[in-house]
Amino acid sequence: MCRLTLPYPSRRLPALMAEPRTNEFMEKLVSLCKRRGFIFQSSEIYGGINGFWDYGPLGAELKRNVKNLWWQSMTQEREDVVGLDATIILHPTVWKASGHVDTFTDPMVDCRTCKGRFRADQMNEIPCPQRPSKMASECHGDKTEPRAFNLMFKTHVGPIESEDNLAYLRPETAQAIFVQFKNVLECSRQKVPFGIAQMGKAFRNEVTPRNYTFRSREFEQMELEFFIRPDEVVQQLAGSVARVDPADPAAALRTPPATWGWEAWHRYWVEERIRWYESIGLPRSSLHQYWQTKDELAHYAKATVDILYQFPFGTQELEGIAARGDFDLTQHQVSSGKSMEYFDEEAKARYVPHVVEPSAGADRLVLALLCNAYTEDTAPNDKGQMESRVVMKFHPRVAPIKVGIFPLLKNRPELVQQARAIRDLLRPHMSVFYDETGAIGRRYRRQDEAGTPFGVTVDFDTLGENGDALKDTVTLRDRDTLKQERVKIADLVPLLIERIR
Amino acid sequence: MCRLTLPYPSRRLPALMAEPRTNEFMEKLVSLCKRRGFIFQSSEIYGGINGFWDYGPLGAELKRNVKNLWWQSMTQEREDVVGLDATIILHPTVWKASGHVDTFTDPMVDCRTCKGRFRADQMNEIPCPQRPSKMASECHGDKTEPRAFNLMFKTHVGPIESEDNLAYLRPETAQAIFVQFKNVLECSRQKVPFGIAQMGKAFRNEVTPRNYTFRSREFEQMELEFFIRPDEVVQQLAGSVARVDPADPAAALRTPPATWGWEAWHRYWVEERIRWYESIGLPRSSLHQYWQTKDELAHYAKATVDILYQFPFGTQELEGIAARGDFDLTQHQVSSGKSMEYFDEEAKARYVPHVVEPSAGADRLVLALLCNAYTEDTAPNDKGQMESRVVMKFHPRVAPIKVGIFPLLKNRPELVQQARAIRDLLRPHMSVFYDETGAIGRRYRRQDEAGTPFGVTVDFDTLGENGDALKDTVTLRDRDTLKQERVKIADLVPLLIERIR
Repeated sequence: MCRLTLPYPSRRLPALMAEPRTNEFMEKLVSLCKRRGFIFQSSEIYGGINGFWDYGPLGAELKRNVKNLWWQSMTQEREDVVGLDATIILHPTVWKASGHVDTFTDPMVDCRTCKGRFRADQMNEIPCPQRPSKMASECHGDKTEPRAFNLMFKTHVGPIESEDNLAYLRPETAQAIFVQFKNVLECSRQKVPFGIAQMGKAFRNEVTPRNYTFRSREFEQMELEFFIRPDEVVQQLAGSVARVDPADPAAALRTPPATWGWEAWHRYWVEERIRWYESIGLPRSSLHQYWQTKDELAHYAKATVDILYQFPFGTQELEGIAARGDFDLTQHQVSSGKSMEYFDEEAKARYVPHVVEPSAGADRLVLALLCNAYTEDTAPNDKGQMESRVVMKFHPRVAPIKVGIFPLLKNRPELVQQARAIRDLLRPHMSVFYDETGAIGRRYRRQDEAGTPFGVTVDFDTLGENGDALKDTVTLRDRDTLKQERVKIADLVPLLIERIR
Repeated sequence: MCRLTLPYPSRRLPALMAEPRTNEFMEKLVSLCKRRGFIFQSSEIYGGINGFWDYGPLGAELKRNVKNLWWQSMTQEREDVVGLDATIILHPTVWKASGHVDTFTDPMVDCRTCKGRFRADQMNEIPCPQRPSKMASECHGDKTEPRAFNLMFKTHVGPIESEDNLAYLRPETAQAIFVQFKNVLECSRQKVPFGIAQMGKAFRNEVTPRNYTFRSREFEQMELEFFIRPDEVVQQLAGSVARVDPADPAAALRTPPATWGWEAWHRYWVEERIRWYESIGLPRSSLHQYWQTKDELAHYAKATVDILYQFPFGTQELEGIAARGDFDLTQHQVSSGKSMEYFDEEAKARYVPHVVEPSAGADRLVLALLCNAYTEDTAPNDKGQMESRVVMKFHPRVAPIKVGIFPLLKNRPELVQQARAIRDLLRPHMSVFYDETGAIGRRYRRQDEAGTPFGVTVDFDTLGENGDALKDTVTLRDRDTLKQERVKIADLVPLLIERIR
């Protein structure tokens, strides 16, 4: 996610480009997201603000689930990673040391004719505002030479707006991790290799925000800095460094971790992250690895792999996994005059650790999950006739609502009472939605659009009106298969917990 | 939390002031917070940045637990509240409409002699930088008249730094809720009364940040806007509006909610919020209600209650609960030209809903939990002698780590293997910490300082070396009572889940 180099021009990935149904699909998705409360334009009643998006009730839950699962997989489920929650505004010297003040720029072109402003590397993709049939690069407007524009938002801390009080909104969460490396090391009793994880907002003053929430000016990152031994130390301790064979990249990972240098750790994290995406419902087949070439790599990077998702508007980055050597810690060591060295008791050596950085964007992941979930198919209505429906096929782990609860009829107090009792039974364990309004088929359809994986219906069988065998059972409907099974109320909690985990 | 009026001068609450052990207690707490990784100064290696604090591994978990519990109690456990996650940067007109551009100011005084800068209302409390034995108000420096200083951080969106592109970092999360009121209403199928909850960062460019993390420039809020019927509509529908008797404030809450007007709803939320604080470990006796007098109320507010906690540095606000009438929605209706009216089907009436706003600060709550938890007592060491210890007595619900797992001896592989198996058994359900290093007493002490409520020790009894009766049992130690009980490994998960919920 650290974009000191330019992002991919999409021409680089022709084979992966989506079909040109893009616009229609995105229009439907954007419309559903607003109507159902996934995503709203920020400050919409004031005409919106370009590059800023809010999450409505369903979107806020979806994003929370994504972030909680990332955090859980990174910290709670591992021995070797601890968390950090640092501020958005840091000491400005942090961004001098990191290189952002000098080089975190995009080339910007102004058109004197139409007053448009474009990113120089996107002029083949963005239409001319005055003549939208032509791309900005093709029109005859009088354009300036490209100028470097720093993407960091500026502000001033304290009452005086002077150079001395200048501060930046962080353009990435990673640097706060490097800056607090020593404090975390000292309090956490961790030993290299270990990681520090952080989630949080970051800000980039994009020249042209676009593709819905994909490239916005305010966004959220989920970043891990995983600190490892330099290869020389591994060599000295283990006698060898695991080799990574391009033809069999998993080979290195089958060797003892004590021999893992940066290449093996880098491979490990690429595989870990792809497995995590799979675990929340993005099929491996929808993801692509792009290995940056030597020419594309930042000067300090040893390798960078981008995990790309096939968005309708193009195949674009979800996460970057970079082997960054000791660049960042060393920069801060030099700038601050504070040692970033680690004493390795086992190796009896003192060194600045190297780092592998899996850095993901929470908002673009939410967008990928929305794109992946959106499905049009058919389902039977209340009369048994097949009708088209829109269904958001979220993995139950990320679904904003886990189960909808419906009394068959609103005007039968016994049904309503029983359904509410089930709602209260399930609520401590999961997010539920109780709905008694309208025909049952319409209520199913509403939950299909919200992506709710399960529906529980309380009917006359539940009340025992059709014999004891079905008494105290409910219908459990599966959103995707549309199958309905009879389940005992007493079994609902463990059964649903099993299916949503 | 909406501070359009000035915060309390502490002289207003003399009876609640803490004893003057303040400094020593705070010094110990601050030292523990850094050493154990609860709180670090932001950008510490660069000398820090005044008013900004980071949460280390334990602090990040503590704060996450607080926020998750708030969110759960507000959304998952209720039918009538939905969530929102809006941006930090909003359209600037939002802050004109809300009154923040014009009135969200503090009176600031500059001293021409010492170049100090003070909040005019705090000059009796802040020492003169040149002569710290005197307060700023007492010294003879040449001071300016108080001037209004707007507390909003400014930035510019887009490449040009002009007035047209000026934007603010939100000084509160509440306004985004009002701005999105209609979108949320339309997508969520909620009916008045209902609420919208939001958590997130907010920024205030405080003249003098102080009291550790209590008054910082970057902080996190947890705000609910609960929309209700105007009293006239309640009167029309229910025939009467529940009266609140100051001598028996709970009386109104025992009446049918259909008759609740703003007073009853306000009382309801005050009680709800205090119960929530109790549920996460702040005793009711440590909390105080301050009812603002008529003179103190903002012009649009009908009532404001502040829930105060007895911090070591004074009794200060944790949360404000304000009945704000229809002020905010009406302001945005006027400024945006978009209707904020709600059509009440039951009342067959169209109106701008009124609002009750419980608004809490996550960081000051974390600080209250830290202050409340910090305890010095005695516990037996490995030789059975009593020694002093520091223990953080967090409620298990908020404790960063729920259970420590210890093999009695590191050099006995059977003990280590069994302890690691228990770690893997518990980990999917809760945050665990495995520790095999050092004497068992020292390991307990480390977890006491981290506030871990339970410790599981694997010993020779566990392995069956002292007979079958104790085989596959472990010692479960209680942090606070120091009691140790024998528990079957098979019972650990349900038993601990029960105790940490």
